[in-house]
Amino acid sequence: MGNSLGKLFVVTSFGESHGDCIGVVVDGCPAGLALTAAEIQKEVDRRKPVSAAGGTTRKEKDTVEVLSGVFNGKTTGAPICLLVWNRDINSSAYEQVRSVPRPGHADYTAWFKYGGYNDFRGGGRFSGRITAGFVMAGAVAGKLLKTCGIEVLAHTVQIGDIKAAPQTAIQIKKNVDKNPIKCADSAAAAKMASLIEKIRKRGDSIGGIIEVMALNVPVGLGEPVFDTLEGALAKAFFAIPAVKGVEFGSGFSSATMKGSQHNDIFMLKNGKVVTLTNNAGGIAGGISNGMPILARIAVKPTPSISVKQRSVDLKAGKNVDLSIKGRHDSCIVPRAVPVAEAMMKVTLCDFAMRAGLIKEVLK
Amino acid sequence: MGNSLGKLFVVTSFGESHGDCIGVVVDGCPAGLALTAAEIQKEVDRRKPVSAAGGTTRKEKDTVEVLSGVFNGKTTGAPICLLVWNRDINSSAYEQVRSVPRPGHADYTAWFKYGGYNDFRGGGRFSGRITAGFVMAGAVAGKLLKTCGIEVLAHTVQIGDIKAAPQTAIQIKKNVDKNPIKCADSAAAAKMASLIEKIRKRGDSIGGIIEVMALNVPVGLGEPVFDTLEGALAKAFFAIPAVKGVEFGSGFSSATMKGSQHNDIFMLKNGKVVTLTNNAGGIAGGISNGMPILARIAVKPTPSISVKQRSVDLKAGKNVDLSIKGRHDSCIVPRAVPVAEAMMKVTLCDFAMRAGLIKEVLK
Amino acid sequence: MGNSLGKLFVVTSFGESHGDCIGVVVDGCPAGLALTAAEIQKEVDRRKPVSAAGGTTRKEKDTVEVLSGVFNGKTTGAPICLLVWNRDINSSAYEQVRSVPRPGHADYTAWFKYGGYNDFRGGGRFSGRITAGFVMAGAVAGKLLKTCGIEVLAHTVQIGDIKAAPQTAIQIKKNVDKNPIKCADSAAAAKMASLIEKIRKRGDSIGGIIEVMALNVPVGLGEPVFDTLEGALAKAFFAIPAVKGVEFGSGFSSATMKGSQHNDIFMLKNGKVVTLTNNAGGIAGGISNGMPILARIAVKPTPSISVKQRSVDLKAGKNVDLSIKGRHDSCIVPRAVPVAEAMMKVTLCDFAMRAGLIKEVLK
Amino acid sequence: MGNSLGKLFVVTSFGESHGDCIGVVVDGCPAGLALTAAEIQKEVDRRKPVSAAGGTTRKEKDTVEVLSGVFNGKTTGAPICLLVWNRDINSSAYEQVRSVPRPGHADYTAWFKYGGYNDFRGGGRFSGRITAGFVMAGAVAGKLLKTCGIEVLAHTVQIGDIKAAPQTAIQIKKNVDKNPIKCADSAAAAKMASLIEKIRKRGDSIGGIIEVMALNVPVGLGEPVFDTLEGALAKAFFAIPAVKGVEFGSGFSSATMKGSQHNDIFMLKNGKVVTLTNNAGGIAGGISNGMPILARIAVKPTPSISVKQRSVDLKAGKNVDLSIKGRHDSCIVPRAVPVAEAMMKVTLCDFAMRAGLIKEVLK
Repeated sequence: MGNSLGKLFVVTSFGESHGDCIGVVVDGCPAGLALTAAEIQKEVDRRKPVSAAGGTTRKEKDTVEVLSGVFNGKTTGAPICLLVWNRDINSSAYEQVRSVPRPGHADYTAWFKYGGYNDFRGGGRFSGRITAGFVMAGAVAGKLLKTCGIEVLAHTVQIGDIKAAPQTAIQIKKNVDKNPIKCADSAAAAKMASLIEKIRKRGDSIGGIIEVMALNVPVGLGEPVFDTLEGALAKAFFAIPAVKGVEFGSGFSSATMKGSQHNDIFMLKNGKVVTLTNNAGGIAGGISNGMPILARIAVKPTPSISVKQRSVDLKAGKNVDLSIKGRHDSCIVPRAVPVAEAMMKVTLCDFAMRAGLIKEVLK
Repeated sequence: MGNSLGKLFVVTSFGESHGDCIGVVVDGCPAGLALTAAEIQKEVDRRKPVSAAGGTTRKEKDTVEVLSGVFNGKTTGAPICLLVWNRDINSSAYEQVRSVPRPGHADYTAWFKYGGYNDFRGGGRFSGRITAGFVMAGAVAGKLLKTCGIEVLAHTVQIGDIKAAPQTAIQIKKNVDKNPIKCADSAAAAKMASLIEKIRKRGDSIGGIIEVMALNVPVGLGEPVFDTLEGALAKAFFAIPAVKGVEFGSGFSSATMKGSQHNDIFMLKNGKVVTLTNNAGGIAGGISNGMPILARIAVKPTPSISVKQRSVDLKAGKNVDLSIKGRHDSCIVPRAVPVAEAMMKVTLCDFAMRAGLIKEVLK
Repeated sequence: MGNSLGKLFVVTSFGESHGDCIGVVVDGCPAGLALTAAEIQKEVDRRKPVSAAGGTTRKEKDTVEVLSGVFNGKTTGAPICLLVWNRDINSSAYEQVRSVPRPGHADYTAWFKYGGYNDFRGGGRFSGRITAGFVMAGAVAGKLLKTCGIEVLAHTVQIGDIKAAPQTAIQIKKNVDKNPIKCADSAAAAKMASLIEKIRKRGDSIGGIIEVMALNVPVGLGEPVFDTLEGALAKAFFAIPAVKGVEFGSGFSSATMKGSQHNDIFMLKNGKVVTLTNNAGGIAGGISNGMPILARIAVKPTPSISVKQRSVDLKAGKNVDLSIKGRHDSCIVPRAVPVAEAMMKVTLCDFAMRAGLIKEVLK
Repeated sequence: MGNSLGKLFVVTSFGESHGDCIGVVVDGCPAGLALTAAEIQKEVDRRKPVSAAGGTTRKEKDTVEVLSGVFNGKTTGAPICLLVWNRDINSSAYEQVRSVPRPGHADYTAWFKYGGYNDFRGGGRFSGRITAGFVMAGAVAGKLLKTCGIEVLAHTVQIGDIKAAPQTAIQIKKNVDKNPIKCADSAAAAKMASLIEKIRKRGDSIGGIIEVMALNVPVGLGEPVFDTLEGALAKAFFAIPAVKGVEFGSGFSSATMKGSQHNDIFMLKNGKVVTLTNNAGGIAGGISNGMPILARIAVKPTPSISVKQRSVDLKAGKNVDLSIKGRHDSCIVPRAVPVAEAMMKVTLCDFAMRAGLIKEVLK
């Protein structure tokens, strides 16, 4: 269980890294939305591995297929099943992890939880590849949000110790896809690429931070006390493998701030209530306040590294050494950028539907 | 909507700061658990304001009442309704926030979302006082978790720039309630108390960080890909007013780490698989790995400060100055410690029930 | 678990027959609805026992209290906790059922499921008295539905073999509360009352059928394939103790019909699509079709009868004889009429909210 | 929305009658269950149209494919995606129903609800063909239930006015698949077949009743007050197109019974508590009581008949005549028998998992 997300816009994920396919069922999309495989494809292509960004060398020719829910180019109100078939699979390298779990990976917990029956090939359900399904669902959500003017952006803001300079939304939109790092600060992006290449040569990996934002979100999304906008977004972000932290607005740095610094001052601007600063990250009391939603998510270094590590042979019951073979990313942060966008879109779409925003637009 | 949390162990919150009561319905507690109001009272008392910790001077004599679900001192399997009546209420100070929202507070979003009909007195549904209900539910969850040996701890690890030295679980258990700061490092606690007092005198407020941990959690809790343990815990933590960030294990510092540093090495210890480090915070692939669950939550400074701030008069439609009166905490971090524990307990209890752990114990 | 119903309009039930109270938390009611305890009281009073209708002689002085969610006479958008305190309780008669389950009652299944810890007094959670909470929730839902013009009616159409003649909605509204049987056909009502009295004198009980209808329901409510309007209504009706069957429109008699008889012919009437007949009971494909929703629910005879019955002593492990004492209804059908209305209201309200109907009206 | 069913065993349906495929995602199946496409195929084949039973002449060569969740012949704990591709599709006959809804069919409600964007071909989402997905999910659930000894049976008990004589579970198991009517009483089956053939020749259709039962269900399944076993089963049964009524045990005939007749007397049999009769249909207080679960569902005559009917041209806005072409069943009752079984299996499986029954068996 646990493979469905959302209340009115419900995303159900299925598929394994080295199984037949990666798929998703999107339930709750209103009828009448123009939707083509090509549009979804465009989003899926953005998470393709790029060698210069430390991505895996596996050649994923992921072709999106729309199996249901679309008729004559428009959504029908029925559940939309989207999938990509798995090709270019070589599972031979994974036989070794069957009983010797990779440190930092879900190999051990999956083996234990599923009694050894989990599909271990390529990480199975715990592969980053699963997120292709998230991105397909996000593409649908993104189109719905666009009907209310809501826009979602993400970009890489940190790799290792290298941080991007702050960028405006306009700069991010313009520049995020200009480099394989998906960092809108091109100077920082170049440094990040060098670092990743250096790390890759050592057979190691490196973490980073992604900033995700949503623009033009109206006031009022979020359902306190338990379905807060922050809580729902965090839950969605933590579905992305390797995410270990989520913060909004000033986030963890809020700890060192005084109320007089942190409080975002209200003011009228063209007859609209806005705040002077955005330490709240666009959310107060779990509800959107009309300012941009700002989230940052911490991505740990990918665990699959080729440097020798110690582990345990679960069958033999002894400590062993492990050198991981196969094709792996040395930095998954850039590839997680469109996935983070997708999770933001999917979550906002659910809340926008609860607020009746999307329905009205389509009518 | 949004006031229920959990799938098998379902917590429904109700009540307002200055309404009749603060309450909670706990549904899904197995029958046969010994449960008294006194035990729950003990937990509720831990979140009482303490002046030395910068707490409000409001005298909350919260007396827990068990309205249903317990018979002859044992739970019956029926929903458990718990509440505290509101006393010592003085709502006069809140009339001003009706149309002039306090910066940083939910006044504005609540006013907008609920069309001005929200109970604004004392913050209504957005008051920290609502968390008394969370703590009552957490007390029930904690007793259930104890039947499987699971223990939950939290303590203040940072106030402003003052950080506590790392503490062992044993030290935390022993020392957390020895000072009003709920910080297990007594030297740091003293400095934190001074800082809070200094801030309080200025009419300002200050943020901080709480560490929450769970011990003896068996391998296997968490339901990927969307009901990950991290995601569910984060969703629960973000229900606590003022929380702006949640991280697990090495969290945001994972961004700067290499895989060879971050990966927790597996090893056999007394025939059991453990990890040498705990950068994962006890969770891999969204599933508990048998090591302690480690979370850190960032708490922003409470927005209700008495220093003059600018705001907007929503009715008059003009910018105004605002000086907040009434009794307010200058640092809510210590009071949020038992609440953080409660949210961890409630969440783990739900997952333990999905895994069939608690049921078996009670039989 | 299992004590919450609904997706956007969520009703959580708590309380026991002989515990402190019977209550309900209604989550999801939009802000700004005028709501008083008196209005809810009126509905609760309709399910009071009436001796002439074979009701229990227990004097239930149920006074509705609104504990949360209402401020200055209007709903606030926060969860609404409603309860009635239990008074006039005499639990002595129930000691006997502790180990000797009453045939036909939930005594045995409750005892088994909850390991003997269930509150057996007065039937505990399995008492018809629990439905006072349903009625309180229904009163809120009914007010919301009224804002969209939807009206819900129910009346007794059969007691034992005595059937009421078909009545129009206008007749039902006018006459349902004119007799204790809650049957709009006064001639039939008199016969039903006689039958019930005859049965009561014998210490026996009798079943019946209730018709529930909703008028002015717009086309489009219901979410196939699993959240059909029929399925959701049936689930709600089966929460009423003693209900053993639910049918819509021509229901079970559809089995003997030909398509050419059963199909409701479409026609235009004043520019609106209507059907000539209503064998569908206002629902096609799980979706409301604009015609009145028509449901019929079968209520079994109440199991608590004073005639001697055989049963089993669960502790002693032997067959025994049982004569039930205490105050019991000999026919619960009339008292279930307002409860059936409440369940229809609560369910339609949830679907109306999913369709965005109620939100729009309140704005 | 509304295309997912269940809490721990979650079934998500997708696909359309004349789209690419009919599919289902089964989430929550424990790891380690042996599962092959062939086993599921066997169940799917049971709902194939049979001309002698008045089934459609469409040749459905439905070949089950397992797209995910199974590895090396065993379930992995990951969601299981199952589908059949649609072949032999001829949508030409459906162009006419685009604007002229078939009386009794969901054409009109679907057109209205989805703003005319619904896939009308072959009934789209409202086709009985969707239930192929239900049957695939039921096959998985059935295997899980078998691990606890629970068995589910269904058979046709009435077609038009022809009723089958009561049959024992053993007789049903032995005889249900011996005739195309799926009626265990072979004499009645022959009469039913004649009736259906007569009706078919007239271009008309006929309804019927199916009895569904579950054997060896342990005491304790069901979660009052809102997740009663009756309510959950009814909700599942009403997902089957054309079902208009659901009753348990003595059902609607309970209305005419006295408590002294209806109450099932408890007695000890081989140290086990059983009831002498089963008017409760195996459910008391919403909880299984250890006796066979007995449900009956009323199936209306299929609306697609070739006799001329009146309807409305929704585009032209005028009353018109309609003669439906295409291949249609004149009696869908026999084909609904395996579907009813599937819905019972899926529902019981969810409750068995909540009770921890299945998990224990697989360990």
